[in-house]
Amino acid sequence: MKKIKFRPVIIGLGYVGLPLLMRVAMKKKVIGFDLNKKRVLELKKNYDNTNEVKSGDIKKYKKNINFTYDKREISSCNLYIITVPTPINKNKEPDLSHVVEATKLVSNFIKKGDTIIYECTVYPGVTEKICGKIISKRNKFKINEDFYLGYSPERVNPGDKKNTIDKITKVVSGSNEYIANLIADFYKSIIPAGIFLSKNIKTAEAAKVIENIQRDLNISLINELSVIFNKLDINIYDVLTASNTKWNFLNFEPGLVGGHCIGVDPYYLTYLSKKIGYNPKLILSGRVQNEKMVDICVNKLIKKSNEKKINKKRSKVLFMGLSFKENCPDLRNSKNLEFLLKLSKKFKNIYAYDPLVDYNKFKSKINKVKFLKYFPKDKFDIIIICIPHNIFLKKTKKKFHNIMSKNCLIFDLKNKFSFLKPDITL
Amino acid sequence: MKKIKFRPVIIGLGYVGLPLLMRVAMKKKVIGFDLNKKRVLELKKNYDNTNEVKSGDIKKYKKNINFTYDKREISSCNLYIITVPTPINKNKEPDLSHVVEATKLVSNFIKKGDTIIYECTVYPGVTEKICGKIISKRNKFKINEDFYLGYSPERVNPGDKKNTIDKITKVVSGSNEYIANLIADFYKSIIPAGIFLSKNIKTAEAAKVIENIQRDLNISLINELSVIFNKLDINIYDVLTASNTKWNFLNFEPGLVGGHCIGVDPYYLTYLSKKIGYNPKLILSGRVQNEKMVDICVNKLIKKSNEKKINKKRSKVLFMGLSFKENCPDLRNSKNLEFLLKLSKKFKNIYAYDPLVDYNKFKSKINKVKFLKYFPKDKFDIIIICIPHNIFLKKTKKKFHNIMSKNCLIFDLKNKFSFLKPDITL
Repeated sequence: MKKIKFRPVIIGLGYVGLPLLMRVAMKKKVIGFDLNKKRVLELKKNYDNTNEVKSGDIKKYKKNINFTYDKREISSCNLYIITVPTPINKNKEPDLSHVVEATKLVSNFIKKGDTIIYECTVYPGVTEKICGKIISKRNKFKINEDFYLGYSPERVNPGDKKNTIDKITKVVSGSNEYIANLIADFYKSIIPAGIFLSKNIKTAEAAKVIENIQRDLNISLINELSVIFNKLDINIYDVLTASNTKWNFLNFEPGLVGGHCIGVDPYYLTYLSKKIGYNPKLILSGRVQNEKMVDICVNKLIKKSNEKKINKKRSKVLFMGLSFKENCPDLRNSKNLEFLLKLSKKFKNIYAYDPLVDYNKFKSKINKVKFLKYFPKDKFDIIIICIPHNIFLKKTKKKFHNIMSKNCLIFDLKNKFSFLKPDITL
Repeated sequence: MKKIKFRPVIIGLGYVGLPLLMRVAMKKKVIGFDLNKKRVLELKKNYDNTNEVKSGDIKKYKKNINFTYDKREISSCNLYIITVPTPINKNKEPDLSHVVEATKLVSNFIKKGDTIIYECTVYPGVTEKICGKIISKRNKFKINEDFYLGYSPERVNPGDKKNTIDKITKVVSGSNEYIANLIADFYKSIIPAGIFLSKNIKTAEAAKVIENIQRDLNISLINELSVIFNKLDINIYDVLTASNTKWNFLNFEPGLVGGHCIGVDPYYLTYLSKKIGYNPKLILSGRVQNEKMVDICVNKLIKKSNEKKINKKRSKVLFMGLSFKENCPDLRNSKNLEFLLKLSKKFKNIYAYDPLVDYNKFKSKINKVKFLKYFPKDKFDIIIICIPHNIFLKKTKKKFHNIMSKNCLIFDLKNKFSFLKPDITL
């Protein structure tokens, strides 16, 4: 087997690309490319605004890294690892524009014998049948003769400091056995947790996309159950505590499913499934249930605030937590923002507080809300805690009591602030 | 708190009642009651045809047990534990007839201060609003004054020799705090794994019913995925092996969901949910998917046998595994039997083999099939292995090869006989 000495470039330096780049840089020279000039300049100054990589770590391995937004620098490489986002469009269909754009970029520089690996979440067939074809066509290259493809799905869990890239088994695959083994060796050398060599690319693509589908569906079940039990005046969390004493019960909780993965990935597979003539009713039912949850939250809050005779015009509302999940500044597809936006049409005086996020990213879209830089000191009639950021959990009971009016309504979505005796949970 | 010295009777000596009876008998005198005279006589002879309890164990604790089918013997008790089945009717609605019948039986003997505990899977409200009311009405007794109710869901996993009743935390609840604590003490004294005291009866009822709903839904997801991947020519098991290398992926497999629990319990909650005006689309989508799987199996087999040009009239088919799950003789709601029945209308020469089950229970319903007492010796053109009984897994490759025709089609539903290089899996 002819070995290839890989000269890698990571294309896309977000939640996935940067941690991967760091792993490579610990072992060898690597280029980090991103179209976003601001991001590149920040990284050059050792600053990661996603909070995934520490400043000291960037500094430590910087001698091996070339951060750049200059496309021409890519030309020196022979291994292109694409870690760009794969969102959905307004019709909830896959938006492959970033993947296609990155593929076209690479095809401008690719030389015979080079390898392109995708780490993005896609549906089975995207790597070979869409991206591979673009390269073949533009360069008149034949796959597995003139160039190779690989697929190695990212498994980054933003904000999770335990399951980090070095500790997660990496699934790898290649367009033929030869390159699959070389790709396996490459990842083995940078991921201490080791690799799993998948049968082929489409199997690895399938394996990735179902991971988040499974999570989405399990949360949607608990959400459906919470709706049923709410009507029966049974607390879902009491039920879950009892069920969780069974050895094989799975510990999921009700919640707003946002972010760029769990609420998005299912649409990749359902798109393909419908295209080949099969309507995946179950997966889509789960999506429908989870998409309903913001309205359910709004209704729950309105109902309780009416019961408590809270005046919608005069009352002061504090809305805590804006990012899509705890301990993470990521605002993409945040259902908490959607919740806030909907509430801003019902209540007149809403104050939002989340020290982790950059308000400038959305402030203009929710102009009726006041965004607080610091934990407030005045009294509120309604306090909504959307996500249990550690920074919120660390606040004392007294700190909260100081800002609660006598009749204050507490909506603790995730049931993590029982010390405040919340009026409602999700 | 006034203590009660419980004199217990277990009503219903099936998969749930008998193991429970044994736990009680290790500590104190107990009556075991069943309407089925044959079952009682067998138990008196230390024989358990469900394979859950060993003959030696029955013998060992027999001095504490009074097995009976004579209703009058119940009258000496003050604690009635009801462990009767809760199946569904033909419209897939809860069939509470056994529970109601057992409740009426108890109400004939109940005295002031007595306690009735239900272990059956029901929907929230059955214990108090249906059973409690029957007793109140028939006896003119007031709940929590003249009698008490309890609910402690069974978590028996038939055929599972690891998670046995002594090792499974027991959820307990009572109609008021006083009796809940006494019920907790009672179960604590017989279950080494300990108890979990639920807030109230309806919460415990809810906790029980969702355990199997979660399992049902997770299997239905994998079933839906297997259908999609089948169309894409991707092997679901290859995908699952890759996904399972992620730390939080849940290891479910495609399958026919039968038995008296997982495929049944969801209908209990969906019945109630519809009754209170909420259509639980997600849970029902899961049920629909799982109910489709027998037809999918039939179609898969027919398609492959056509590809292999196997003649439906002349070919010999061996069908292995009839009970609803591995290593268990239970035939209730077995989808494997349904599969066999449907195949018997397509193929002329079918031989069925399952040494664990009692053929007499269904032989007459599937009269076109020959039921084998021993593993056969002739050659077959199709071998279908529905469930991986240990007794099947222990057979050598040679044993199977001896009975395979040259062109033999192997359908290994659960992908557990890879040494036979199956043509298809589920």
